[in-house]
Amino acid sequence: MGRDAGDEGGSAVTPSAEFPPLRPEEVDRLGRIGQRWRGPRPSDGLPVDPTLDRYRGRPAAGRSGRLTPIEMFAVAPPEPAVAPPEQGGAPAGELIAGEPANLPRSRPVRALTRLRRAVVGPPLRSSAVLYERMRKLVALPVLSSDLLSSVAYGPEAMLSVLVLAGGGALGLSLPLAAALVVLMIAVGISYRQTIPAYPHGAGSYLVASDNLGAGAGLTAAAGLMLDYVLTVAVSVAAGVHAVTSALPGLAPFTVPLGVLVIVVLLAGNLRGVRTAGNIFVLPTYAFVVAVLALLVAGWLRAAGRGFAPVAPPPVPAAEGLGLLLVLRAFASGAVSMTGIEAVSNAVPAFRPVEWRNARTTLGWMVTMLVVLFAGLTGLIHLDGLVPRPEETMLSQLGRLTFPTGPWYALIQAATALILLLAANTAFNDFPRLLYFMARDGHAPRRFLHMGDRLAFSNGLLALSVAATTVFVVFGGHTASLIPLYAVGVFLAFTLSQAGMVVHWRRRPGPGSRRRLGLNALGATLSGLVLLTAATAKFAEGAWLIVVAVPLLVLLFHRIHRHYATLHRALELRPPPVGPAPAGPAEGEELPQQVRHLVVVPVARLNRASLRALAYAASLGQPTLAVHIAPEEAEADRFREQWRAWGSHVRLETIVSPYRAVIGPLAHYLEALHAVGPELTLTVIVPEVVLRRRWHRPLHSRAEQRLRAALRPLPQVVVTSVPVHLVG
Amino acid sequence: MGRDAGDEGGSAVTPSAEFPPLRPEEVDRLGRIGQRWRGPRPSDGLPVDPTLDRYRGRPAAGRSGRLTPIEMFAVAPPEPAVAPPEQGGAPAGELIAGEPANLPRSRPVRALTRLRRAVVGPPLRSSAVLYERMRKLVALPVLSSDLLSSVAYGPEAMLSVLVLAGGGALGLSLPLAAALVVLMIAVGISYRQTIPAYPHGAGSYLVASDNLGAGAGLTAAAGLMLDYVLTVAVSVAAGVHAVTSALPGLAPFTVPLGVLVIVVLLAGNLRGVRTAGNIFVLPTYAFVVAVLALLVAGWLRAAGRGFAPVAPPPVPAAEGLGLLLVLRAFASGAVSMTGIEAVSNAVPAFRPVEWRNARTTLGWMVTMLVVLFAGLTGLIHLDGLVPRPEETMLSQLGRLTFPTGPWYALIQAATALILLLAANTAFNDFPRLLYFMARDGHAPRRFLHMGDRLAFSNGLLALSVAATTVFVVFGGHTASLIPLYAVGVFLAFTLSQAGMVVHWRRRPGPGSRRRLGLNALGATLSGLVLLTAATAKFAEGAWLIVVAVPLLVLLFHRIHRHYATLHRALELRPPPVGPAPAGPAEGEELPQQVRHLVVVPVARLNRASLRALAYAASLGQPTLAVHIAPEEAEADRFREQWRAWGSHVRLETIVSPYRAVIGPLAHYLEALHAVGPELTLTVIVPEVVLRRRWHRPLHSRAEQRLRAALRPLPQVVVTSVPVHLVG
Repeated sequence: MGRDAGDEGGSAVTPSAEFPPLRPEEVDRLGRIGQRWRGPRPSDGLPVDPTLDRYRGRPAAGRSGRLTPIEMFAVAPPEPAVAPPEQGGAPAGELIAGEPANLPRSRPVRALTRLRRAVVGPPLRSSAVLYERMRKLVALPVLSSDLLSSVAYGPEAMLSVLVLAGGGALGLSLPLAAALVVLMIAVGISYRQTIPAYPHGAGSYLVASDNLGAGAGLTAAAGLMLDYVLTVAVSVAAGVHAVTSALPGLAPFTVPLGVLVIVVLLAGNLRGVRTAGNIFVLPTYAFVVAVLALLVAGWLRAAGRGFAPVAPPPVPAAEGLGLLLVLRAFASGAVSMTGIEAVSNAVPAFRPVEWRNARTTLGWMVTMLVVLFAGLTGLIHLDGLVPRPEETMLSQLGRLTFPTGPWYALIQAATALILLLAANTAFNDFPRLLYFMARDGHAPRRFLHMGDRLAFSNGLLALSVAATTVFVVFGGHTASLIPLYAVGVFLAFTLSQAGMVVHWRRRPGPGSRRRLGLNALGATLSGLVLLTAATAKFAEGAWLIVVAVPLLVLLFHRIHRHYATLHRALELRPPPVGPAPAGPAEGEELPQQVRHLVVVPVARLNRASLRALAYAASLGQPTLAVHIAPEEAEADRFREQWRAWGSHVRLETIVSPYRAVIGPLAHYLEALHAVGPELTLTVIVPEVVLRRRWHRPLHSRAEQRLRAALRPLPQVVVTSVPVHLVG
Repeated sequence: MGRDAGDEGGSAVTPSAEFPPLRPEEVDRLGRIGQRWRGPRPSDGLPVDPTLDRYRGRPAAGRSGRLTPIEMFAVAPPEPAVAPPEQGGAPAGELIAGEPANLPRSRPVRALTRLRRAVVGPPLRSSAVLYERMRKLVALPVLSSDLLSSVAYGPEAMLSVLVLAGGGALGLSLPLAAALVVLMIAVGISYRQTIPAYPHGAGSYLVASDNLGAGAGLTAAAGLMLDYVLTVAVSVAAGVHAVTSALPGLAPFTVPLGVLVIVVLLAGNLRGVRTAGNIFVLPTYAFVVAVLALLVAGWLRAAGRGFAPVAPPPVPAAEGLGLLLVLRAFASGAVSMTGIEAVSNAVPAFRPVEWRNARTTLGWMVTMLVVLFAGLTGLIHLDGLVPRPEETMLSQLGRLTFPTGPWYALIQAATALILLLAANTAFNDFPRLLYFMARDGHAPRRFLHMGDRLAFSNGLLALSVAATTVFVVFGGHTASLIPLYAVGVFLAFTLSQAGMVVHWRRRPGPGSRRRLGLNALGATLSGLVLLTAATAKFAEGAWLIVVAVPLLVLLFHRIHRHYATLHRALELRPPPVGPAPAGPAEGEELPQQVRHLVVVPVARLNRASLRALAYAASLGQPTLAVHIAPEEAEADRFREQWRAWGSHVRLETIVSPYRAVIGPLAHYLEALHAVGPELTLTVIVPEVVLRRRWHRPLHSRAEQRLRAALRPLPQVVVTSVPVHLVG
């Protein structure tokens, strides 16, 4: 349960995180508990060889003939006899589950599994986890697709707000863009300070929890989670918009197209494409080249007319031009910076010296962002373009600059592709974030589990469901999603950089004062943008985030509390000193303290109940059979049958004049427990295994109902003896 | 499983039907199995006194302090010492579950139970089953409400078809009514023959199965079930129509009003009002008196003008007047006969001599039906009335005859009430039919169960759901429901009377020839109506019934087959001669044949798994612990912890390089079973009991998934050791 973010393996992802090691004091307690254990000694004379070794190579058909289960296990070759067993390397005769051992038994589920494997590929061994290191020229496109793709919708988001105050207000885009450039550089420099300080990965969640405490970390995590969901929704929406701008005929299919894209991304990530960085290289560079070409051609054209701006077409004002509107435009433009944090998360993926290479890459990225963002905003101003809902501004610019030919198609295709990759970034980061949170007990532990393909399948599914929901609810409309977007991102930025301020104050050293200042500047500016975005766009949708973040934080806290309670309850405790007490035993773990009473509820005497009785009797513990009768007459009849059988087990009959069965039985067991609180009651019920699902309503499922009724009782163990309908 | 319809108790309803007695040969087998049983002798030294007797009167609070479970049981006083124990009367110290023992433990469910009790009343003891006998003057209204209420919609249903061919075709109502009167008398006389032959109740299901075989019985049952559902739907629709005819403002609320009525009927029947015959007396007699008064006044008025018919207002013809239309009108009019079978079902409810009193009552009922039906049809013709959708014809007739004053209101109120009672008849008969079918294994056994209030709650619920669905789908419109109605009824009539023909042929005796002839006439006429209704109204909705009946029969057959398979599989068999074989033991029931291997899957070492291990070790059987590791490194780490604990149990580690846990574990157990097929594998898993429902998604529920994966394996017993999150 302890956090180990500062450890060497703090940001490494391993399949064994589901099985955390015991702490040294727990191992010590284990030993002391073990010394008091007085069970039967482990008999070398087990009735079968558990290693199955003797039977290796001899296929034995299962009873059902469907599977030869022994063949599903490989047996590691025994060590040479001279080596002491179980020391170094695989011990003698260790079993290794083969791939078919993963197939479920039931036929329909197996068919589904096979279908899934056809889509996502065969399972991968844990040893296939790759810790791939990236060269800078590969890292750049992989990590910058999210950031650079933002310029495809960022400037437009800003202008869409300004144009509400009429065409004249569009001129304000230049000072706003200048302010945003300053912000980009400041945040970029601030993140440059973070990288060397957290060479094992500096996600906002880790940095904020480390320096500001768990609350801040969880707040950053909540912001990031919403950010990732929105990254997928916004990038897919903008990508589809890029396509429909080029091919207006597809516009009515925006929502199904977007959902299809998310499904494809999910399938790809379930296959585990995330290590295949190479597919990122081409689209990202193509996008950069295409937009740079656009900028050069556009600015040359503008130079030809002496940089005289074309007057935008007159647009009637829908709102007055006030401070609020300008702030809204600024906050909308700030979404161009989403993705700037990508490098700091991924420091360990660089080649050594990791932090230096990462920092250089970050510098390149921010430079490229500034060039693209400023260039595009300026060019849009010079060409007098106005946002139109049916066509993106990048597309308008493309058509204006390259009226015909392949350049326009290239721009649109590269834009759509880079946006797809940006969405994919969230598919990498969201499950990783959940993994770290789950490791700390702040998220359900199932997010620790790596699926068949070594992907965090549960996290991927959660992201896809959330993003699809958001995308569909907002009709795949980029402009409606933007107001929600900035809040989560800048929340994480602010907390991460504020955390760095604390970090530098705690660790004074050479240059730490300057770094502190730079981080403080970044934090302050990010905080201002956060405030602006949350307030100015509150009514337009930001309220959703303002409400969701605290709710998520509360949820994370509750989850943590539950796991902490669970952990405390299950944790190994030092055994009491002195002889073992004979009192209530649920807390105890010693076999010599268990006092048995076996209880067999019998409704009627047939092969199922006789099987349960035989099983109970074969355990050799005191046994009691209980029969619930609806009427006195039936009770008499049953006792007669019992005597005919030979009364081999003590029978207690309870008349239930109200005909209920489960309730009286559960309460009777409770009464037995009250009378003998030191006893462990083992309730043995036969369970008829039905072959068809539709047969279930034909049975009262008394076994399941009894199990549910007995679950809250202390020290009541329930044993199901299956009876299969064969023969 | 065997049918015992011919027995003395063939049509009696008892709560102990859920626990059928063993057949004598089964008791014999039981004894022979018992002789071979070599378990530990029933120890008189159980660690607690199972009768709780010693603790009587000493309240002991349960661990949770919520309940004092011992106090929930009364202990029958021990017999005087001279009487041999367990012989006559309550045996010494028998436990009787008190009413609070029926309350479920979990708090929300308990609140629901309390709410339900507030509505339907406190639970009733089984001894409260009443076998009330009825005087004829009480039986008449109780049993005739269904039949007599049919005249409220029967004549109208016929005229509604005729009027489609224009106002002129309405004159055909007189010859059709004459034909229907002949039919009523013939079927009535036919049922008179049935009553003395089946003095224990002569429901169509019983008579048809008895004489024509199970297939015919099930067909009759399917027809009857649909009939009961439609009785509720049609009666409620007609009753609501009687109300909206008087108060047109309520017409828009037809559907909610009808649903409300069905819910009230359900609640009333769950309370168990069915034995309260007296509430039937007043509305039925009031209806008869009101309609008779209407007839007298109307016919006197007609006599005043020399019985000259008033010409009906001109109505344009929508269809040509063909044979098909006339047949449809005839079939619609035949719904006036629904309910004629009620007396024959209820023979045992009469005072002795039952069959004679029942037969007399049937005679009265048919006479009254003929008078009311013929009188109303004739009067409608004389007054030249035409069906109108917004007002029932009975209401039109009432307004015409008693333009003002309380007589009109009385007629409408009595009509609505008798229709309510007619619907209630189905609430009595449908669950009884399901009970008999369930007793024969043709319906789910849960319909044998008598609820808290001695009502067949499951059958009542099934009827209410079905009737509400039909009512809502058809918009509460009587005329749309009529085409479906006649088919099921006349199917049951035909089969029942055809069964009687066979009955008389098999049992020749004085008068049996005449009775055979009368039943054959009834069967032929009913069969003709059935054919007419099924073909002429096929397109109007009868096809639904024509399709549903064979599907239901198929379903009943499948259910029967399942129960028969189950019965064969669980039936006690004669033990094999000679010494017990040591082979595969799932079929065996002797404790000395059970060879144990206890398997404890351990994911990590904590108090939960140590508790499971201690429980396993305390059983004193060979024990094997299994750990599934995702990686070799984790497997080594776990083995180290195991050694630190002391290696008290043999451990087998399986490396699952694909990270699946459940699959390899299940397949490993299968492999163990293949290696040692004579072993019974007991899998012991700790189950952490969560206190809150929302905590469930935070756990992988591995215990449940393992249980599901192990269920199909032979001889694998699963034991859950609960670990409660206290302390």
